[in-house]
Amino acid sequence: MMLRSKVLPFLFCLVVVAFGTKESDLKQCKHQCKVLQQIEEYQREKCYEICEKLYHGEKQEKEEINFYEGREEGKNNPYVFNEEHFITGIKTEHGRIRVLPKFSERSKLLKGIENYRFAILEANPKTFVVPNHWDADAVLFVAQGRGTLSLVRKGKRNSFNIGRGDVIKVCAGTTAYLINRDDNEKLLIAKLLRPVSTPGQFEHFFGPGGRENPQSFYSAFSSDILEAALNTRKDRLQRLFGQPREGVIIRASEEQIRVMSQHEEGGIWPFGGESKGSVNIYKQRPLQSNQYGQFYQGGMLGPIYSSRATKIAVVVEGEGYFEMACPHLASESESGKRQGSKETETRIGRYQKVSSKLRRGMVLVIPAGHPFVAVASTNQNLQIVGFNVNARNNEIVPLAGRNNVMSQLEREALELGFGLPAREVEQIFQSQQEEFFFQGPGGRQSGRAAA
Amino acid sequence: MMLRSKVLPFLFCLVVVAFGTKESDLKQCKHQCKVLQQIEEYQREKCYEICEKLYHGEKQEKEEINFYEGREEGKNNPYVFNEEHFITGIKTEHGRIRVLPKFSERSKLLKGIENYRFAILEANPKTFVVPNHWDADAVLFVAQGRGTLSLVRKGKRNSFNIGRGDVIKVCAGTTAYLINRDDNEKLLIAKLLRPVSTPGQFEHFFGPGGRENPQSFYSAFSSDILEAALNTRKDRLQRLFGQPREGVIIRASEEQIRVMSQHEEGGIWPFGGESKGSVNIYKQRPLQSNQYGQFYQGGMLGPIYSSRATKIAVVVEGEGYFEMACPHLASESESGKRQGSKETETRIGRYQKVSSKLRRGMVLVIPAGHPFVAVASTNQNLQIVGFNVNARNNEIVPLAGRNNVMSQLEREALELGFGLPAREVEQIFQSQQEEFFFQGPGGRQSGRAAA
Amino acid sequence: MMLRSKVLPFLFCLVVVAFGTKESDLKQCKHQCKVLQQIEEYQREKCYEICEKLYHGEKQEKEEINFYEGREEGKNNPYVFNEEHFITGIKTEHGRIRVLPKFSERSKLLKGIENYRFAILEANPKTFVVPNHWDADAVLFVAQGRGTLSLVRKGKRNSFNIGRGDVIKVCAGTTAYLINRDDNEKLLIAKLLRPVSTPGQFEHFFGPGGRENPQSFYSAFSSDILEAALNTRKDRLQRLFGQPREGVIIRASEEQIRVMSQHEEGGIWPFGGESKGSVNIYKQRPLQSNQYGQFYQGGMLGPIYSSRATKIAVVVEGEGYFEMACPHLASESESGKRQGSKETETRIGRYQKVSSKLRRGMVLVIPAGHPFVAVASTNQNLQIVGFNVNARNNEIVPLAGRNNVMSQLEREALELGFGLPAREVEQIFQSQQEEFFFQGPGGRQSGRAAA
Repeated sequence: MMLRSKVLPFLFCLVVVAFGTKESDLKQCKHQCKVLQQIEEYQREKCYEICEKLYHGEKQEKEEINFYEGREEGKNNPYVFNEEHFITGIKTEHGRIRVLPKFSERSKLLKGIENYRFAILEANPKTFVVPNHWDADAVLFVAQGRGTLSLVRKGKRNSFNIGRGDVIKVCAGTTAYLINRDDNEKLLIAKLLRPVSTPGQFEHFFGPGGRENPQSFYSAFSSDILEAALNTRKDRLQRLFGQPREGVIIRASEEQIRVMSQHEEGGIWPFGGESKGSVNIYKQRPLQSNQYGQFYQGGMLGPIYSSRATKIAVVVEGEGYFEMACPHLASESESGKRQGSKETETRIGRYQKVSSKLRRGMVLVIPAGHPFVAVASTNQNLQIVGFNVNARNNEIVPLAGRNNVMSQLEREALELGFGLPAREVEQIFQSQQEEFFFQGPGGRQSGRAAA
Repeated sequence: MMLRSKVLPFLFCLVVVAFGTKESDLKQCKHQCKVLQQIEEYQREKCYEICEKLYHGEKQEKEEINFYEGREEGKNNPYVFNEEHFITGIKTEHGRIRVLPKFSERSKLLKGIENYRFAILEANPKTFVVPNHWDADAVLFVAQGRGTLSLVRKGKRNSFNIGRGDVIKVCAGTTAYLINRDDNEKLLIAKLLRPVSTPGQFEHFFGPGGRENPQSFYSAFSSDILEAALNTRKDRLQRLFGQPREGVIIRASEEQIRVMSQHEEGGIWPFGGESKGSVNIYKQRPLQSNQYGQFYQGGMLGPIYSSRATKIAVVVEGEGYFEMACPHLASESESGKRQGSKETETRIGRYQKVSSKLRRGMVLVIPAGHPFVAVASTNQNLQIVGFNVNARNNEIVPLAGRNNVMSQLEREALELGFGLPAREVEQIFQSQQEEFFFQGPGGRQSGRAAA
Repeated sequence: MMLRSKVLPFLFCLVVVAFGTKESDLKQCKHQCKVLQQIEEYQREKCYEICEKLYHGEKQEKEEINFYEGREEGKNNPYVFNEEHFITGIKTEHGRIRVLPKFSERSKLLKGIENYRFAILEANPKTFVVPNHWDADAVLFVAQGRGTLSLVRKGKRNSFNIGRGDVIKVCAGTTAYLINRDDNEKLLIAKLLRPVSTPGQFEHFFGPGGRENPQSFYSAFSSDILEAALNTRKDRLQRLFGQPREGVIIRASEEQIRVMSQHEEGGIWPFGGESKGSVNIYKQRPLQSNQYGQFYQGGMLGPIYSSRATKIAVVVEGEGYFEMACPHLASESESGKRQGSKETETRIGRYQKVSSKLRRGMVLVIPAGHPFVAVASTNQNLQIVGFNVNARNNEIVPLAGRNNVMSQLEREALELGFGLPAREVEQIFQSQQEEFFFQGPGGRQSGRAAA
C-alpha cells in the first residue's frame, strides 16, 4: 500500500469527445475517469484533481525525480513525426501554420488515415487570424494560451473564449477567426482535419483579404460579376479587394482585442456547454474521439493496445519516450529479405521495435492492435493529446498490471503458449498491482531503492 | 422596392430529392422555397409559380434582355466537361448512350467523386430501350421528352409515365426498360451512377438480346446448362439466343408504344407518389440530393458555396457562364513553380479563377467550399440540374446579398481582415438587398440605366 | 408433380449472419428458408431437414447420380482462386495458416473487396493454436472438425466448443486461441478478415511466445520497461520471453485438451446462442452476411444474380463447376483490341463467359449483378460457404424457373427485346417449374431418360 501511494507516478485523464458526443465539461472528464474503471481508487481521486486543475487553467505541480536518459531513435520508423516533417503553410512575424504531409506519403502503412491531416497553428500574443473557411471538418485542441474563437455557421456567429485543454469541433465550410488575447503567451492550436471533397486535401478560403497575402476569394471573380453581386461600383471594390494585405496572422490593437474578447469564459464545448458549431455533426456517426493524457514525471502508460482505434497524438508539453511493437514493419523488412530465397513460411509472429524520444511538438501515430508504452521524463511531466480515428467500439486492452489480458487465459493456454509451468507465468503477470499507469524504469529504480 | 421588383432577374427552385427522401411532389418543391428562407417574400411567390409551371410541363415565358457576351474559357480547368469528354457507350440510328470517364482520370482533385459516374441517354421518338440491369445505383433525371419507364424489382414490375423534370432512383440490379412515347421530341435522361461492386466501374447486363448487339447474358452460359435451367431443347434456345439483334435502342411500332404507355401520368416519385424502385435505398443514409435550377434570362446565382456537398451539375437548357475560385488549382500550379526555388511559405490564401461558358449538355463539378457564380444568358433562360454528392448536413453559404457571411463578422474582424474602416466594408456588403439570386452583369447594366 | 419430387436435385439453405444480426440458431436458419420464399413447399421441408442435420453434425446421405464431367477451366479468370494462389503464413508439422493475397493484386476488377482478406487455418488433431489477436475484424466458418475456441475481450474470456458449420464473429483486438479436440480429423477454419487500421493488411499479434516462432510482442519492448511494467526481475523475464518457441500450432497433451474442452456443446452463435464476441459489432451497420450452400449430387443453383452483394465463397466439400457472365472482362479485352482502331461504340452488351471446375478448397468471387450458375458433381454433394460483402438490401434475382425476371416483362418488351413473338419467348421462360435449384445438365439427362 505504501508502495502504491509512493509510486503513483502519474495520472491519465481520458476525455472522449467523440465527433457526435454532446456530453461536456468537467462532468465528462470525471465520468471518463470512472469509465476507465481500471484506475484504482487512489488514482481516481488524483484524476479528479487533475480534471479540476486542467480545466481551470492551473499549472500542475512539479515533482523532481531523475529521468532515465538515452533512448535510441527508432530506425525505419514511419510512426513518429518531428518538426522537420511539417510543411509550412504560412509564416509571418506574428505566427505560422504548419501542416503534416498526407500520412500515406510517409508510408503505405498509414494508408488507413490518409484522409486525415494534422496541422498546428501558432499565433503570437495580441494577434488576429483572418476569417477563413476550410473544405474539411476539423477538431481543434488548444495546446497553449488563451484566445477567442469566432465561428460563423448557418447565418449565426458564436464567439468563445478558449484556453488550454479546450476541444472544439469546426464543421467544413464554417467561417472561423481567432484572436490571441494574451499579453505574453503564444496561442498554440493543434488541428485534426478530415477533408470533405478531395480525400486527404484541404485548403483555406479567405473572404477578407485583398489582392494577395491573403488573396480574398472575392477577387477571383470578374469585376462585373462582383459589381452586380455586391451592387457596388468598381472603384470601391478595387479599394476593398485590390490592395495587398499584411498576412493571415496580423497584429491587433489593444482596443480591438478588448472588444473581441468580451465573451463568456469557459463557454466552449465540451468543457462548458455545447459547441454551437457541432450541432450538425452530432448526427453523424462518430469517427473520432480525443484523449488528453497527463503524465507525472517518471510515469509510464502501458503496455496497452487499442482494439480498433488508430491514435494520432501530439506531445503538448514535457519530454519522454515511447516504444511500440509492429509486426507490419517486421513482415515488410522480411519480405524484402525473402525475395532472394524461396522461404515464404515464417511471416507470422515477428515484430519490429519502434521507439522514439518524445519532445514537445512531436506527433505519433499508434495503429490499432499495436502494443505500446509511453514514459514521462523523470524531470518533467509529459502531456500528450491524442485524436482517435475509428474510435467507435474501441477497447483499450492492458498487457500488464491488474486485469491484463494474459491473466484471462486458462492455465493450460499459458503453459502451452509460453512453454513454462503455468504457476511461473501467472506469478509474473500478477506481480504488478497497478493498472494502466506504472512507475517507469527511471522512477522505478529509485522507488525500489526506497522500498 | 421598385428596384427589387424590377430587378428580380430569375428564380431558383431547389428540389432536394435526397437518396432516402420520400417527400414528394409540388409540395416538396414549394417547401424548398420556404426552406431556403433567405428568399424574400416576392421571390418566394415567384418560386411557387415556377414550381407550378415546372411540374405541370408549361414553358417559361421569355424575357428579352441583352446578354453579356465574350466569357473566356477557363484554362487548366478540370471542373467542366464538354461533349468531347464523353465516351460513346452505344450509338445507333435510334439513339445513343454517352458516359463520362471516371472523374479521377481527369484530375486527382476529383478523386472524392471517383466512385460516381455520369451518363446521358438519348432515345429518338417512338423507340424502345431493351431491358437491362446495372451493377450500380442510379439517379435518373428526365431532361427532355416524354417516356414510360418500367422497373422490375423484387419480383414486381412497375411502369411509370415520365416527363421532363422527373427524378427517379433505380437500385442496383433492377431490370429497367424504357420507351420514348413522343412523336417528335427526343427523350433525354441524365444519370448519376454509383457502382456497387467495382469502384467507379459499372456495366449494363442485358437479359433480352441475342448472339450480339446486344448479347443476351443467357448466351454466355453453356448450352447444356441453359437447357437444364430453362427446361427447353437446344434448338429452341438457339432460335432465342443465337441470332444477332438490332441494337440496344430500337424502333417500336405505334401499337407497341400505345400498349406500353397505358400507365398513370405523373406517377413518378418524387413528383407524384413514392418511387416503387426506391423503397430499399430509402433506408440507406442519404448520400446525395438533387437540385434543379431555373434561371431567368440575365439572372445570376451566387457567389455562394456549399459547406459539404460536391455538386455534379448538367446544363439542361439555355446558355450562360460560371466562375469559381479554386485554391487547390492555385496551390498545384504554385508547387509546380516552387520546385526550383526553396520557398515553401506562401501556399495559403491564393485562388485560381475557374470560368467557362455554359451550354446545353455541359457538365460541371463544383466541390465543397468553393465560391462560385452561375449567370444566365441575357437572351435565354438557363436550366441546370445538380446532383449533390455528400449532401447530408450541407449548408449553402451566401457570399453576397442579404445575410451574406461577411455581414456576420464583427466590425473589428472586418477592419482587420480587409484593412479598411469597418463602415466602408459594411456599406459594400450591405448594398445588395436581394438574396442568393441577383440580376447578372448584363441585365444589371440595363437595370441601372432604368434606375 | 412426379417430376418435381424426382428431380429435386439438391437443397440450398441460406444462413444470413450479417455482421450485426443477433438472430441465432436453427431458428434463423429455418427463418431464412421461409424468407427465400421462392423455395417451394417440398424443398422447404427438405431444407428444414438439412438444417437439422447440418447443425447437429450428422452426415448427409449420399445419392449416386452420374456427374457431367469435362468442364474447361476459364481463361483470363480473376474470380477463381486455387491452392496455388494462397500464401503460406505459417506451416508446421501440426498445421498451417494460408492467406489469399489482396484481391486487388489479382485484378483491378476486385478493387471493391480490396479491404477484405481470406485465410484458411488447418490444425491437426490434438493441437493448440497459440493465443493472438489481429488488427482486423473477422468472420470464422468451421469447415471441418471439432474444436474449442476461446475469446478474451473486455476483460472476460469465453470458450465455446465449435464444430462444422459454426460461424463466429471475432472483433479486432480480441485475443483468440483454439484447440482441435478431435482424435483424428483436421480442424479447418475459413476466415474472412476486414483490417481496421491499414486497408487490406492485417497481422497476428502473439502475447504468449518467446524470442521467436512465434515471438512474443512483449519481447519487442526494452527490458527495463518490461521490468517496470511487470514488476519482475530481468532474469525471470528472460526465462519467459527469451527462449525460442515451437511454433504457432503445437501439440497439446490429452490432459490439456480434456481440460480446455470442458465447455458447453453448441454454445456458439448464431447456432446456439449469442456470440459473446460479437456484442459491439452488433451496433455497426451490417456489411456482410454469410451463406452456406448444400447441393445434392447433380444439382444446380441458378442462373441467378445478386443485386448488391459481392460473394466470396469457398468450396468446403465435394466437386462441381460454375459459370458466370462478365461484361467487365469483355469490355476490358475489347478496349485492348480497340486501341488500334477508332471504334468506341460497341462497349455495351457483351459478356465473357467465366467458368471453372469447383474443387474442395477453391475460392470464388462473384460480383454484384453477374449472372452465375453453380453445379454439383453427379457423384458427390457440393458444399459451398459464401461470405457476402455489401449484403444490405441485397436481392437474389432468379433468371430461370418460377418467378424469373423475364416472366415479369410485358409481352411487347419481350417481343422487342428478343425479336421473336412474345408467345414463343414466354413459353421458353415458363418451361421450368422449379425455383432457384434445378437438376443440372448431367442429372437432367438421366432425369429425362426416366421421364
